[in-house]
Formats: sequence, structure tokens, C-alpha cells
Amino acid sequence: MPKSQHRRQRKSLHTSPGTLTYVGEKTSFKTIIKRIEYNESFYQEEIADSIEACLPKEAPGGQSHVTWINVTGIHEPAVMEQVGGIYRLHSLLLEDVMNTLQKPKIETYEDGHLYVTLKMLYRTKSPSKEIWAEHISLILGSDYLISFQEERSGDAFQPIIERLKTSVGKTRRNGPDYLLYALLDVIVDNYFLILESFGDQLDSLEDQVIKGYHDKSLSDLYALKRELTFTRRLIWPLREMLTQLIRADDPLVNKRVFPYLRDVNDHVMQIIETLDAYRDLLASLVDVHLSTISNRMNSVMKTLTIFSAIFMPLTFIVGVYGMNFEYMPELKQPYGYYATWSVMAFTTLGMLLYFRWKKWL
Amino acid sequence: MPKSQHRRQRKSLHTSPGTLTYVGEKTSFKTIIKRIEYNESFYQEEIADSIEACLPKEAPGGQSHVTWINVTGIHEPAVMEQVGGIYRLHSLLLEDVMNTLQKPKIETYEDGHLYVTLKMLYRTKSPSKEIWAEHISLILGSDYLISFQEERSGDAFQPIIERLKTSVGKTRRNGPDYLLYALLDVIVDNYFLILESFGDQLDSLEDQVIKGYHDKSLSDLYALKRELTFTRRLIWPLREMLTQLIRADDPLVNKRVFPYLRDVNDHVMQIIETLDAYRDLLASLVDVHLSTISNRMNSVMKTLTIFSAIFMPLTFIVGVYGMNFEYMPELKQPYGYYATWSVMAFTTLGMLLYFRWKKWL
Amino acid sequence: MPKSQHRRQRKSLHTSPGTLTYVGEKTSFKTIIKRIEYNESFYQEEIADSIEACLPKEAPGGQSHVTWINVTGIHEPAVMEQVGGIYRLHSLLLEDVMNTLQKPKIETYEDGHLYVTLKMLYRTKSPSKEIWAEHISLILGSDYLISFQEERSGDAFQPIIERLKTSVGKTRRNGPDYLLYALLDVIVDNYFLILESFGDQLDSLEDQVIKGYHDKSLSDLYALKRELTFTRRLIWPLREMLTQLIRADDPLVNKRVFPYLRDVNDHVMQIIETLDAYRDLLASLVDVHLSTISNRMNSVMKTLTIFSAIFMPLTFIVGVYGMNFEYMPELKQPYGYYATWSVMAFTTLGMLLYFRWKKWL
Amino acid sequence: MPKSQHRRQRKSLHTSPGTLTYVGEKTSFKTIIKRIEYNESFYQEEIADSIEACLPKEAPGGQSHVTWINVTGIHEPAVMEQVGGIYRLHSLLLEDVMNTLQKPKIETYEDGHLYVTLKMLYRTKSPSKEIWAEHISLILGSDYLISFQEERSGDAFQPIIERLKTSVGKTRRNGPDYLLYALLDVIVDNYFLILESFGDQLDSLEDQVIKGYHDKSLSDLYALKRELTFTRRLIWPLREMLTQLIRADDPLVNKRVFPYLRDVNDHVMQIIETLDAYRDLLASLVDVHLSTISNRMNSVMKTLTIFSAIFMPLTFIVGVYGMNFEYMPELKQPYGYYATWSVMAFTTLGMLLYFRWKKWL
Amino acid sequence: MPKSQHRRQRKSLHTSPGTLTYVGEKTSFKTIIKRIEYNESFYQEEIADSIEACLPKEAPGGQSHVTWINVTGIHEPAVMEQVGGIYRLHSLLLEDVMNTLQKPKIETYEDGHLYVTLKMLYRTKSPSKEIWAEHISLILGSDYLISFQEERSGDAFQPIIERLKTSVGKTRRNGPDYLLYALLDVIVDNYFLILESFGDQLDSLEDQVIKGYHDKSLSDLYALKRELTFTRRLIWPLREMLTQLIRADDPLVNKRVFPYLRDVNDHVMQIIETLDAYRDLLASLVDVHLSTISNRMNSVMKTLTIFSAIFMPLTFIVGVYGMNFEYMPELKQPYGYYATWSVMAFTTLGMLLYFRWKKWL
Repeated sequence: MPKSQHRRQRKSLHTSPGTLTYVGEKTSFKTIIKRIEYNESFYQEEIADSIEACLPKEAPGGQSHVTWINVTGIHEPAVMEQVGGIYRLHSLLLEDVMNTLQKPKIETYEDGHLYVTLKMLYRTKSPSKEIWAEHISLILGSDYLISFQEERSGDAFQPIIERLKTSVGKTRRNGPDYLLYALLDVIVDNYFLILESFGDQLDSLEDQVIKGYHDKSLSDLYALKRELTFTRRLIWPLREMLTQLIRADDPLVNKRVFPYLRDVNDHVMQIIETLDAYRDLLASLVDVHLSTISNRMNSVMKTLTIFSAIFMPLTFIVGVYGMNFEYMPELKQPYGYYATWSVMAFTTLGMLLYFRWKKWL
Repeated sequence: MPKSQHRRQRKSLHTSPGTLTYVGEKTSFKTIIKRIEYNESFYQEEIADSIEACLPKEAPGGQSHVTWINVTGIHEPAVMEQVGGIYRLHSLLLEDVMNTLQKPKIETYEDGHLYVTLKMLYRTKSPSKEIWAEHISLILGSDYLISFQEERSGDAFQPIIERLKTSVGKTRRNGPDYLLYALLDVIVDNYFLILESFGDQLDSLEDQVIKGYHDKSLSDLYALKRELTFTRRLIWPLREMLTQLIRADDPLVNKRVFPYLRDVNDHVMQIIETLDAYRDLLASLVDVHLSTISNRMNSVMKTLTIFSAIFMPLTFIVGVYGMNFEYMPELKQPYGYYATWSVMAFTTLGMLLYFRWKKWL
Repeated sequence: MPKSQHRRQRKSLHTSPGTLTYVGEKTSFKTIIKRIEYNESFYQEEIADSIEACLPKEAPGGQSHVTWINVTGIHEPAVMEQVGGIYRLHSLLLEDVMNTLQKPKIETYEDGHLYVTLKMLYRTKSPSKEIWAEHISLILGSDYLISFQEERSGDAFQPIIERLKTSVGKTRRNGPDYLLYALLDVIVDNYFLILESFGDQLDSLEDQVIKGYHDKSLSDLYALKRELTFTRRLIWPLREMLTQLIRADDPLVNKRVFPYLRDVNDHVMQIIETLDAYRDLLASLVDVHLSTISNRMNSVMKTLTIFSAIFMPLTFIVGVYGMNFEYMPELKQPYGYYATWSVMAFTTLGMLLYFRWKKWL
Repeated sequence: MPKSQHRRQRKSLHTSPGTLTYVGEKTSFKTIIKRIEYNESFYQEEIADSIEACLPKEAPGGQSHVTWINVTGIHEPAVMEQVGGIYRLHSLLLEDVMNTLQKPKIETYEDGHLYVTLKMLYRTKSPSKEIWAEHISLILGSDYLISFQEERSGDAFQPIIERLKTSVGKTRRNGPDYLLYALLDVIVDNYFLILESFGDQLDSLEDQVIKGYHDKSLSDLYALKRELTFTRRLIWPLREMLTQLIRADDPLVNKRVFPYLRDVNDHVMQIIETLDAYRDLLASLVDVHLSTISNRMNSVMKTLTIFSAIFMPLTFIVGVYGMNFEYMPELKQPYGYYATWSVMAFTTLGMLLYFRWKKWL
Repeated sequence: MPKSQHRRQRKSLHTSPGTLTYVGEKTSFKTIIKRIEYNESFYQEEIADSIEACLPKEAPGGQSHVTWINVTGIHEPAVMEQVGGIYRLHSLLLEDVMNTLQKPKIETYEDGHLYVTLKMLYRTKSPSKEIWAEHISLILGSDYLISFQEERSGDAFQPIIERLKTSVGKTRRNGPDYLLYALLDVIVDNYFLILESFGDQLDSLEDQVIKGYHDKSLSDLYALKRELTFTRRLIWPLREMLTQLIRADDPLVNKRVFPYLRDVNDHVMQIIETLDAYRDLLASLVDVHLSTISNRMNSVMKTLTIFSAIFMPLTFIVGVYGMNFEYMPELKQPYGYYATWSVMAFTTLGMLLYFRWKKWL
């Protein structure tokens, strides 16, 4: 979790509720509004240079069709208010769209639209390789879908746009509810990339902890835990959200889309369970690490003890014959010196055998 | 959690229930009752010097309007009873208003009002920088709202009063239920300040624990944990409270205010989750800290072992040639002394290589 | 938890169910039955010397009134059976009254009375200062209330009796359901005394653990944890009990008493939450304590290492010039001895600087 | 948990479901079928030597009465099938009767009987003193009850039989549902014996851990934890079972028996809570134990450090005057030797004072 | 958990949902489709060499019968699509059949079939002995059942096929719902084998940890924990699945099969509880292991301390009489040398007694 992101926790106090304020990093990016219209038989895409371009249009030949307003950049209150005005969005909804700290949630508004907000997760480039959470908002109406995203990683929905443009698949044949599903699916699929990077980190930490020994291991484990906690907090609410979407029986979501939403929910559950399993394994790795430290200490202590136990008696023995007593019969013996060496050799041998027997060697 | 606050746990035993007793710090402050009346077209504010000034009044021209009685100071039973008498408040309700140990709750009284109590949290000035919980009570009636607060931090609701006075915003256009929301919003927004200070403390403890090493770290971690626990206990019930407020379908709360209450609830959830995440990270930091201590110990032990392993053999060798045997051929050798030095140099070198191989150096 | 209390876990096996057996400490105390009759206009109190005195009586002038049978001493099966016979109490109910190991519960009997059992907690006198749980049973009928208590701490309900006798308060004006509330309130208020003693113990352990260092700390922490666990197990069921009492919609309990019962429930919740917070902090204190031990060890090891690292080289140096080689040029130098001292002084200084750099000094 | 018992986890794979196989220890015991018939006015008991003796009989005078078939030994599939045939028991039910690994459960069969299975727990004799779980099955019909038990501990239901035979108590006056209760009560009462033995073990471990110090403590704690886990797993489902029995409103169980079943349920809850409290205390004891080890280590290290800190300087000093420099003025001083001793005495004293100041002595 | 398996977490991103992609290890195996038809009176089995052979056939004599399509190999999208086309299976269902990472679940499709997916667990051969999870899918229709399995362990359902072929048992007399049960039963029975291997590993780790001491113990414990976590995650959803199957009241599953499904559910519960108990014991073993390490360290330290405490004073004493003072009266004493030895002997003896008293010896 980048600290800057973790800091920006608070909208400014004492502003009247419903006041639109962008809560996020400063940026000079100009908001891009892309307007896409499609049904089974036609597809049309344009960059809206004026707000009027966002107004619902009639399809050629008056056919019913889906309008997708894809807004990149959520930092300009003026733009927000204009878009909100056209589609009659509640001021609290717009506040949530701009509040990058808003956690994932779903909300039904009585004005006939459904509001879904969640996070797109991706890793920034080396060297920091932090996980960055992009704030995504999706608003589903009867024949339109509005998506809001931050401007960081290019357009996160580009693959969907490509698919719509190139082939007449299920998305083209279905309404905006299926498009909502397709966007959710892209976002959730991206989570697997993050999951995979966690798996890699865990594997490498596992090797590091079990095989070798590094002082840094525990702070690495801690950093990974922090990222897991951060990610889990952002993904966890999706479970509730999707269940609610399926159960709510909202007229905006067709029953035919339910199996698809259930499928996304399955993926979310799988991700959460894997995150939990990782967290569990991480906790065990901490134990393994602490035990490794203790083992190292044990090994250091044994070395010290063996050295002491061998050399202390030897030093004592040579000390004895360094005494200056006038009457010390051994000193006069011609082989006293060699005898002393023998005694010392035996002592050393005895010690070594003792430590071997204690399995310290 | 300041100990004085943590101590004053108990109202005096064996008093008849419903007896009004102030449970809090002694104070000589004189209760201030501010009476504010407003609707879309007029605004009027006065300090009530007599209790009669609290009586509901007719607005100019007989318009329907909102009366807000804002009481600062909850330690005078006499004042409480008079206000309670005018608005027919239950004696248990008044007891809760004065009981600063009462945890946050919501209660509907059949006499047609709604009682909400919660805590305003703020940090006291340096050097103690403790978290202090001010006891707030809000009573919602059909066309009035009574707020009670302790007298510590000035008037916590001053920003709302300013907003009411200066501009005809949503609060002026809505009933006392919206005012209730606005007050809750101000209180909850204040929690973010506390949260931010926790975030800062955690970050600085993180640096302290991971980079350096201080004996004090664990008691700092413990102190932060204690504050987190204290804060969480005071915020946790709000979740239940707000959900109940929305679900209760009380005629006092208009449905139009629900989205706003949900918004406050979202903030409360976000705060609780962040607190939980902090608690989790704190627990991991304790592990990191304990492991750091072990690492330090390991390093100390290695130093000791290396010194011992190098100097014990050397001391033994010089001891050997300090012996006084009459027949010790080496002593007579002209280069014996230098040879001994060579042997010792090689021994030392061998040891150093051994420890390098063991990666202790 | 006194061990004697913790031991007496089991009624004797293989007795037919419903057989009345006293499960508790032996006692030679004679059961006292106090009969109190009151309504708003009269109050009468007598010690029942015969069982007949327990029979319901008519009030003077045939007024409706409340009869409170307050039984102190629950160890005499004969007395129990007689009282039980008069008020037609189920044999299992009487068994529970006498079974001091029965945990708190509420039970509705179809014969038109409500059975509530819970514990009065108090600390025994010094020096043991154990927590003792007195077994209390309350039986609520349409116009009577029977209370059973052990005979340990005098009459726990004396304050209520005083209040009834001296003033015509709410209790006198209400039925036996309000009396039930008043008794519950007295018992729960007593828990705050226990809570306060826990708070004091925790504070003093905190000081002991964070500031000083005692070998006994952990067993003190363990003893406190044991008491917290014991207390929590006895208080926890009250939460369920009181909720049930409010929800049950029993004709014996008037709706007007509900706010009072909710108030008691609030207190119970507050006590449980405080106990949980204490338990949490206790667990953290154990960590702090373990880390303190490690820190002490670290400090001991450093002292050892510093001594070794300074004196081992010195001892080696003086050992060198204690050798008896015939040709050792330094020995002949007139200033050799002083030079050696200088070398040793420099070595020592070097070591001290090294340890200062390592921040061990 | 005896390992043999813990091992026999699996019925042989790939047998058709419903195939009767005894899963338990081999035994050559011959199944005993005891047939007991009673009502308020008569009691009759016989050992069934042929299967026909199990057939329901008419009571003398055609009175309605209760038939209790008490089967000891569950390892003979042939016997099982015959009994099952007479009372039309489902093949899966019979499989569960013989499967000693089946965990406690309750099941209603549409053929008009109720199947309850649970465990009788007892400790084997010294020296192993393991906890053994005997598999008990109880089948309740409209006017009969069939009980199955293993043949280990004699007839576990003998006390009930005695009671039925000798006195016309509640059991004789009630139907088979009350008999079911009586049997459950006997089994649950037995659990208290196990609980008491756990309490004793915990107390003795507590003494062992807090006062003394044994290397074995932790494996004893582990063994106790293992037994607690094993026991809890076998008792835990009873809670659900009994609640279900009371709520199910099965015509086989009369409402008059409900208070008795609730009483058993109370006991089960009390047992489970005590087990949980024991587990909690056990976990704390592990902490205390680990801290005791650390304290011991601390004490060992201090001893070492004190010895080193005293003798290293002394050895250095005597080393100094063991040097052979030609010019060492001190050596010539007549009182040099005594002066050296004084210096050493002061050094030692200084060290002792230093360690006393550091509170190591 | 083999890492390769743990890695393959992700289907390729940005493919349109419903696109059939095999997610698993590459294989060149040719899919085998076995077609089995049976009822009480006939049994027929053939290997389908063309897809047409999968089409439902009429039984000889037009009897109603069960068709079981047993597909081994799930890696060929073409085959999947053909089978899916014949039985009108939803594209998301087919995606789940091929997605070996799909966790166990049950899903009802409105086209009149029921989809169940779960894992067959088995251990691979030595030396790796990893747990391998084979992805199994079962599709139940009104008169057919389609099973899909990976091609690893031969045909997992062979025992069922044998039973069907050789004897007219319950499976032959019942519909495809009973066959579904039989297949689930075989799979769940297999889990007991895994459970048993866990039990063996735990027992052997227990011996290893409690009796001896190995540096590897903790990584073995960690590896076992990892396998337990992996297994539990795959078995846990079955509980929910089976409960849903029983409660769903699906016309495809006859009520007569419910007791059998409940039986499987019982087994699943037993497995999960045993896994949880193992996990619990594992956590305790980690504590035991860490304490063993500490005990070893303690023992090492004691050895060191004893050696130091004995030899340091001795070395000091002999150092004293190695000094070269001119006036040292002891040196002149004829028995000085022997007196010194006596002093040293007494010192040593004193130390030994001291350590014996401290119970270090």
C-alpha cells in the first residue's frame, strides 16, 4: 500500500454534504468522455468534445440500442455535474464517484438507476511495484451505462471496446446489464494478476525463509501481509455486492444475466479464499522464520560452548604448570612436558566424544 | 485512554433508578442553552437565559419551522430536569444524557421522540495528546431537535450553526431529521482526524520497528493498541445504530434523508474497517519487533562467540609456553617465539575463514 | 476462581432427576424467610417462623398488593419443598434453585410464573480476595416475587428493602415486575465494583510490566485472566436473558417496565465489552512482558560480550609476555612493560569505541 | 485419545452403501439382548436368548406399557439385521449403529421412529488412563425404546434398570420418551466425571507450570489439549441435537418431557463452556510456561555473566604480574603481592556492587 | 500442494466469457467417452467412438432406464462442445467443466439439469507424494447422468461400474439421482484415505517433535499445514453443496435419496471436523516445538555456564601463583603446591554442589 494513498483518508471537514470535491492525487489531465452506441446491427464510437455529445441519441432507424458513456478522469467537478445533470444522478452518487476513498458498494437509486463502485487493481512499474487501486464507478440505466475511471492506466476497458467493435458477440446482442457484467468481469479478471504476483512473492519468501536466512525476511513478510490486507479490504465487499445484485431482482438486470454474475461471484469467492489461504500461510511462515532464528542462535551457542568447554580445561592445565612454586615435582620430570600434552589431548578427545554423544557435533 | 476517564466507570450504587446524577469530571461551568429557529425563509438564534426561553415558539407569520435547542454542559441535574419537563423526556433518557459512560445507542420513545447518543472524539493538546470522548446526546422530535454536549471543546456544532446562518442550503430547506443527519455527519467526519493521527502513529512506529531498534517500541505499540481498542469500542455501535435508524421506518425520519444516513453509515464502516486493518498491522508489527530483538541477540551472541573462539586458543597457546617444565625443547629454540606467533596468526586466520564460511562475518 | 468452588462441579451421579440435593459448601445456617407485603399505601415486613407464614395473605382492606418472599439459605431441601409446594413450583425449578453450579438462565413455566437465576458477584475479604459467586434465584408470579439467595454476604437485597420501607417510590407504585427489575439492577450494579477492581489490577499490572520487571508478572497476568474468564462466563448469559425477557411479551411483565430492563441490559453489555477489552489488553500485556524478558536477556548478553571482548585480548597479551622462551627480544627492552600497558590501553579503548558505535553502550 | 481409536477412521472403501460392517475393535463377545417391560403397575426383565424374544409382547391384562430392548454388543451384523428387521429400521440407521466412528446426531425416520446416537465417555484404568468413547445408539418408537451399546464397560444403563426395578418413580409412570431422557441424563452426568478429571489435571499442571519447572510440562499440556479437543468434538453436537429434539415437535416426544430435556441441554452447555474455559486457560498456561523457560534462561545467563565479569579482570591482573619483563618495578616491591590482592578484592567488590545495583543479585 | 498446480490460477485474460479453454496441465491424452445404460433388468456398456454414440437411446423393449455418459479427459474443447450440444448444456457450465481451478459448487440450470462439481483427491506416488486434486463434474438430468473427470488416475468410477455390472443392487433399482449419490459417496470415501495419511503424518511429527529434535521439524509442520489448508479449501464447500441439494427440493432428486445424501454429508462434516482438529493440534505442536528449541538452548547455556563457573576460578588461582613477585610467601612453602590443589578441589566441589542445588546437574 503506497503511503501517499493510505494517507489521503479524509475529505475536507465541514463542507456541506453533497459538495463535489475530488479526493485523490492532483492531476492536470483533461477528462475524456467516450460515447459508444451499439446494438446487434450497428456500432458507433465518438469522443465527446462537448457535454451535449453525452445526451442520449436515437439510433439510426430508431432501433433500440445501448449507450455507453465511458468517462476517463474524475477530478473535474464541473464535468461531473454536467454529466450528473443530464442523467439526473443524485448529488451523493456524484460525491461517491469522485471520492477515490469510497469502498466498493452497490446502491439502487429510485430515479431508476443502479450505482456500482469498485476498484481496479494493478501493480505500478518497477522499482516500487506498489499495488495501486483505481476508483471505478458504473451506473446502469434502462438503456445506458455510464462508467467513470481514473486516468492512470490508460483506458482499463479498452479490451471490451475492441470486442464490441470487432465482433457481434454476446455483448452486442444483449442490453446494458450484460455490458455491466462484462466490465465487472474484466476488473475481476485483473485481480487474478495481482493474486498471481502474491503467489510468486509467497513462494519466493517461502524459499527464503525455509532454506536460507535473511534478517530482512520478516519485514518482507510484513510488507506482503500489508498488501494482502489492503487488497482483501478492497475485494471483500464485492462478494456482498454481487449477491445483492443477483437477489435484488432489479428490473434493470435481466435474469438471463444472472448465471454470468454468479460466475463473476465465483471468481471473487475464489480470490478471497486464496487471499485468506495466503494470509494463513504467511502467519505460519512467520513462525517458521522465528524458529529459524532460534535455531541459528542455538547453533551459535553450541559453537561457543564447545570452544569454551575444550579450551577452558586446557588453559587451566597449562596454567597449573606455569605456577612458580619451588616444590613442584612434575616440573622436574624429564617427560612431564610430554605427559602434560598427552593429558591435554585426552581431555580434548573426551570433550569431543561428549559433544558427539550429546549430538552437538 | 486517559486513566481518569477509564476509572469513572460506575454511578454510585444503590441509588434509585432514574435518579439524575452527573457521572463525569467535576466542573464549575455554567450550562449554555442556545435556541435556534429556522426554516427556508428565516433564521433566529438566541442564548436562553431562562428556561422559559426553551419553550416552543411560533415562527413569525405562523410558518412551520425547526427548533434546535443546543445545550452545552450536562452536569447540572436541575437544568436537565427543567428541559426534560418541557419536552416530556423519560427519566431514564435524562439519566443517559448525563451518564458520560453510556455507550452509543439509539432508542425510540413512545412519547414521539427518538434518542441518539454517541461520542465526539478529539485529541487533547500536547503534551499528553490523549483521545478524549465527549458525550453527545441528540433528541429528535417532530419539529424540534435537542442536542446535549459536554463543555470541553467549545461548541462542536459551531460549523453547522455557521452554515445555517449564512446560507439557505439543504439543511435550511429540510426538517429536523436532516439536521440530525448534519450533526451526525460532523461528528463522524471528526473521527477521520483521529484515524489520520492513528495512521501517522502507525507509520512512525513502523519505521521505528523495521529500521531502528528501541526498547520503548513495544510499550508504544501497546499504547497505540489501547487507543485503537478504546476508539473502536466507541465507534462500533454506530454501525448498528445507523442501520436501525434507516430500517426502523420511524415517522420522524423522512425517506428522503435515508441516502444521507446511508452515506454516514458508509463512512462509519470505512472507519471501522480501517481501525481493524490498523489493529491487524499492529499485531504483525509486534511480531516484527520480537523478531528484531531476537536478531539483535543473535548478533550479540555471534560477536561473543567469535571473540571467544579466536582468543581462547591463543590464550591456550601462550599458556603452554608459560609453563615452567625444565625440559621443554621449544623454549630453547632461537626462533621458537616467532614460530609461536606464526602458529597463532594461522589459528586466527583459520578461525576468521571458518566464521566467514559460516556467514557470521 | 477459588478452587473449592471450581471443584464442586457435579451433583452426585445416578440420583433420579428432580431429586433435591444442595450442591454447595456445607453450612449449618438456618434458612431465613422474610415476607414483605406492600403497595402504594402500606408496607409490612415479617420474618416467617413457620412455613404457613409464606402463604399469600389478603392485604388490609382487600387492596391488591405485592408479596415478596425473600429466602436466605438454599441448603435445606425440606424448606425448599414446602415453599415449592405452596407456590406450585416445578421440581426441576427447585433443583436449579439449589444447584449453585447452575449458570444464569431464564425459564417460563406454564403454571404462570417466570424463573430467573443469576449470580451475585463479590470479592471476599483479604488476604485471599477471591471472587465469590452467590447463587440467586428469582421467581416472578402475577402478584408475588420469590427470591432465593445463599447466606454468605448478609442479605444482598437489604438496600431495596430499605428503599421500600422508607419512601413511596416507583417500586412501591409498581407491581412485582418492577421489583424484579430493581433486584436485577442491584445485582448488575454490583458487577461494576468487580469491574473496577479488575481495572485497578490491570492498571497496576500495566505499570509493573511496562516499567519494572518481576518474575511473578506472568502468573499475576494469568491469575487475572482466569478471574476475567470466570466472571465473563457468569455475566455473558444475562445478555441473552434480558433480551428474551423484553421480547417474550410475557403477561407477567408490563410493557412499562421494558425501558428499565433495557437499561439493565445496556449496563450488562457495557460490562461485557469492558471485560472483553480488558482481556484484549491483557493479551497485549503478555506480549509486552515477554518482550521485556527478551530485552533483559539482551542486556545481560551484551554485558557478558563486552566483558569478554575487552578482557580476552588483554589476557592474551599478558599471556604472551608470560611465555618462557629464551629469546624474546621485547622482554629485554627497558620500556617493554610500559609499552605493553599502552598497547593494552589502546586495545581497550578501541573495543569501547566499537561497542559505542554498535550502540551497545 | 488412544491412537488405535484415532486410527480406525475409515470403513472399507468401495462397499455398497448400507452394507453392515462393524467398524471398531475386534471382539469375541457374544451380544446380550435384555428385554425390559414396565408400566406403573408391573415390571418384567428377561435376557433374550432368541431373536423372537425381541418381538413386542402384550402386557398382562393388555395394559399399555413400555418395551425397552437393551442390546449390549454391536459387532454382529446378523443380530443387527434381525433386530432391524423386527422393528423395520432403515439400513443406513443400522450402518450408523455399527459405525463406532459416527459422530453424535439425531435423525427422524418416516417409519415412525427417532434415532439418537451419542458417546458414553469414560477413562480406562491405570496406567494408560485414556479417555474411551463408547458408541451408544437409542431408537425411540411410540411404545418402545431400543438401546445399543458396545460391550466395554459393563452395562452403562444398569443404574436406570435398578431404579426401574426397585421403585415406581417418574420413569415408571411415563412413556419411552421419558426413558430416553433418563438414558441421556445418565450419559451426560458421566461427562461431569471426565470434566472433573480434566479440572484436576489442569490444576496439577498449573501448579507444575507456575511453581516448579519441568521439561515435560509442555508435552503434558499438549496431551491435555488433545484430550480436550477430542472430548469437545464428541460433546459439541449434543447441543444441536437436544435443541432439535425440543423444537422438532415430534409426536413421539411429549411436551411434558421438554423441561427435562432442557435440563440435560443446560448440563451440556455447562460442560461445553467449561471445556472452552479449560482450553482458554491451557493456552495461557503455555504462555506462562514459555515465559518460565525464558526466565530460567535469563537466570542461567546472569550466573554466567557474573562469573565472567568477576574472574576475567582477576585473571587479567594476575596475568600481568606473570609477565617476564626484566624491568617491572612492581615485582620488586615487598608489598606488591599484597597490594595486588587488595586491588583484586576491590575489583571484585566493585563488580558485586554493580550487579547488585543492576538487581542481578 | 504442488506448486505447478498452485500456479495455474488464471484463465487467460480478456477472452470473451463462455469461451471454452482448458485450464490445466498439457496432455496428449485422447478423451474416452464410456456410455453405460442400465435398469433393474438390463445392463449395457460401450466405448463411444463417435459423438453420435452419446445420443440418448431407447432401451430394449422401450423400458425406462438410466443413461450414464462417463467422460474421461476434459482438455478437448471440441469434444466438450459436441457433448454440450447434444444435452443442451450452458456455455458457462462447459467452461466450469474444463476449468480445473473451479472450486466445488452446485448449480441448477433452468434447462432441467443439475450441475455438481467437486474434487477427487489422491496422493501421487513416491517420492513426491503430493496431494493431487482431480476435477470432477457431474451433470444430472431426468434420466441420464454425465460425469467428466481428468485422465490422471485411471477411471475413478471403476468400482461403481463393476458393481453395476455384477449385481442388481440398489443402484440398478434406482434412478440417476441414486447414481449421483453413489459417485459422490465414492469420492468422499476417498477423502478418508487422505485423512488417514494426514493422521499418520501428524502422529509421526508428534513423535518427532515431542521425543527427539530435528531442525527440519518446523518446515515439516509447515508443509503439513499447507496440505491441510489446501485440502480443507477443496472439501469445505461440499458441506454447503450437499445441504443445498437436500433442501432444494429439486424434482430431479427423489426424496428417497435424501437419507443417503445426508449420510454423505455426515461423512463430509466428520472429515472437516477432523481436519480442523488436526489443524488445531498442529498449531499446538508448533508451540511444543518452539519450547523444545528453547529447552535445548537452556541446556546448552547451562553446560557453558557450568564449565565457565568451574574453570574460571581455577584458572585464576593458578594464575595467582604464576605471578613473579619477589616476595610471595606461599611459593616457598614446601606443601604450597599441594595446598593449592586442595583449594582448587574444594572450589570445584563447591561449584558442583551449588549447581546440583540449583538443579542444573
